[in-house]
Amino acid sequence: MHPITHEDDLLALIASVTPTDAGWLPRAAARLDSLTKPPGSLGRLEELAARVACVQETVRPKAARKRIVLMAADHGVVAEGVSPYPQDVTMQMVENFAHGGAAINQLAATARAELTLVDIGVAGDLSELDGIVHAKLAQGTANFVQGPAMTRALCAEAILVGARLAQEAAADGVELIGTGEMGIGNTTAATALTCAFTGVAPLSVTGPGTGLDDAGIVRKAAVVGRALEVNAGLLTDPLGILAALGGLEIAGLAGVVIGAAASRRCVVVDGYISGAAALAALRICPGCADYVFPSHRSAEPGHAVVLVALGLEPVLDLDMRLGEGTGAALAFGIIEAACRMMSGMATFAEAGVSDADDARESALERGTGAAS
Amino acid sequence: MHPITHEDDLLALIASVTPTDAGWLPRAAARLDSLTKPPGSLGRLEELAARVACVQETVRPKAARKRIVLMAADHGVVAEGVSPYPQDVTMQMVENFAHGGAAINQLAATARAELTLVDIGVAGDLSELDGIVHAKLAQGTANFVQGPAMTRALCAEAILVGARLAQEAAADGVELIGTGEMGIGNTTAATALTCAFTGVAPLSVTGPGTGLDDAGIVRKAAVVGRALEVNAGLLTDPLGILAALGGLEIAGLAGVVIGAAASRRCVVVDGYISGAAALAALRICPGCADYVFPSHRSAEPGHAVVLVALGLEPVLDLDMRLGEGTGAALAFGIIEAACRMMSGMATFAEAGVSDADDARESALERGTGAAS
Repeated sequence: MHPITHEDDLLALIASVTPTDAGWLPRAAARLDSLTKPPGSLGRLEELAARVACVQETVRPKAARKRIVLMAADHGVVAEGVSPYPQDVTMQMVENFAHGGAAINQLAATARAELTLVDIGVAGDLSELDGIVHAKLAQGTANFVQGPAMTRALCAEAILVGARLAQEAAADGVELIGTGEMGIGNTTAATALTCAFTGVAPLSVTGPGTGLDDAGIVRKAAVVGRALEVNAGLLTDPLGILAALGGLEIAGLAGVVIGAAASRRCVVVDGYISGAAALAALRICPGCADYVFPSHRSAEPGHAVVLVALGLEPVLDLDMRLGEGTGAALAFGIIEAACRMMSGMATFAEAGVSDADDARESALERGTGAAS
Repeated sequence: MHPITHEDDLLALIASVTPTDAGWLPRAAARLDSLTKPPGSLGRLEELAARVACVQETVRPKAARKRIVLMAADHGVVAEGVSPYPQDVTMQMVENFAHGGAAINQLAATARAELTLVDIGVAGDLSELDGIVHAKLAQGTANFVQGPAMTRALCAEAILVGARLAQEAAADGVELIGTGEMGIGNTTAATALTCAFTGVAPLSVTGPGTGLDDAGIVRKAAVVGRALEVNAGLLTDPLGILAALGGLEIAGLAGVVIGAAASRRCVVVDGYISGAAALAALRICPGCADYVFPSHRSAEPGHAVVLVALGLEPVLDLDMRLGEGTGAALAFGIIEAACRMMSGMATFAEAGVSDADDARESALERGTGAAS
């Protein structure tokens, strides 16, 4: 008997994920069509409610309790000058999150969502900071233009950290789990993952991140190209790709997605970095797909490619590119509204409202055919 | 001295509306750029916050208190068979709103928004119904294929009813006023208004409304064409157009828009019908434009034309076509988040976070130029 490794634990987790029962879709559609509105008139709100209904196995879905898991980590690739911000900003921003000063604090509060802050690999000492989960696995990743960002074992361990946090959220009664991240340099990692998972060329998906100029974007694309070359021999399976080109927070968020699916909870995926994490999760564990709700379409060019690869349409398109879970927090409100609509509205019969079929019948009785 | 008419009162109201002070835009931009996020990284959220800041004349805008004014009325044109639902549904749905069973009840509750229900012209007796504003001006409009839907005086009176409700909302401390409507047949009125205000042909903007089939749409477009012909002599000014082709709830909502602007409050405009009302308001009172926030892009084809005419981009695009204020309620959450972001976030200086300029300076001091 060999010792149980993180990869073994990950395989067991993956095996526990099953798609939703498609039998709930027609039940959800029947409930939605019975409510006092023209059939289909709430468009994507109805689609979102029906998807949550399938996950929760009820025609009265709920999204009252919401939590964003925001994971922070650093990236060795910042040594290549891929960001206009210094690496210290990752740690400074985690402190800012803990003190309530960042955008995600305000957006989560507006959505009445909890916020779980996680140091999974920030370079620096945050051990004295209250109000965060201390789960640091390393002082950031290695520079992936010189070799893999992480070993497979470390990557699997980071996935398991995220999965555990999602399972804890489910145990706490959280209905929507959102993803968020902070990590200077992580659009470079997300771009490398996007290229490796989809086969697109670096220059076609590399964007400004936090604010590179055109020359900076070309340099960043070249860094991504070198990373793909240097690590080519390791990119043989999804876990190998995530380990070589990802980040600790990205692997952690892939774990949040897999853990949410394993716990049969909806996971609302933020923007580009979170989207790359979700794509990694789906390649590692295809059964996750039914549980994934992309929140918004990021202004980062690579995100469109990620969304196509996920095969899912986001809820919002607000030209945002901040991360932190800001898109997930905004989408929470829309998904909560969709669930309350489906659960709380009266049916035509309950409200005594005539529906289009009643109207057609009474027109036939009257011998008129005007109501088409 | 001639007696003071509704049109005189309307002219006085229009004269009280002034655009926002553009001097607040650079102040808003400076505040937004000082917050702990890359400049511009919250995209349209920053634009929305800046617009609210200009309306409220503060760099810490608020959108905590929200109210939807939902106006209901009937339309004589339903005699032409333009809707699959019978006219009774308008009254039945007002009862459903009052009893909390409709989509808007759930969406307003999710957004923590108040809901003011107004009978401004429902055909039928709602006088015993509690929880609504009784402001019935007529038992619906006249059939506008046989002459004007309303007289100019009645239309002006309906506008003033809406304006008064917006002013009351402002006096109550409401920061965001939303519009909503109910009226079987009112996509036909909105389509006629869209054609009259923009010059597009009926067939190019007529849609299914609550659920017409293709033959029904062609018949509805022909009805709109006849209405434009029959009333051609009355379509000489914006009030004449609104009176001839509008509805009591549409005129009332045009009044909500003008009243909101007169009270210096943001007005969040729902979908197609509300959009046509806002377009009428802007043509009657161009100074309103700075106060108008379109909430969503309706699936009704005419709405795209209305949005171009308004010159404003909606916040959401969720393929919805219900009305009632459902889009406005969803957009409330996004605009509230934008305001809380702008008002509540820490600045780089407050949080001790390095910004991109600091990084450039320290790179120069170190003699490196990597951070571009």
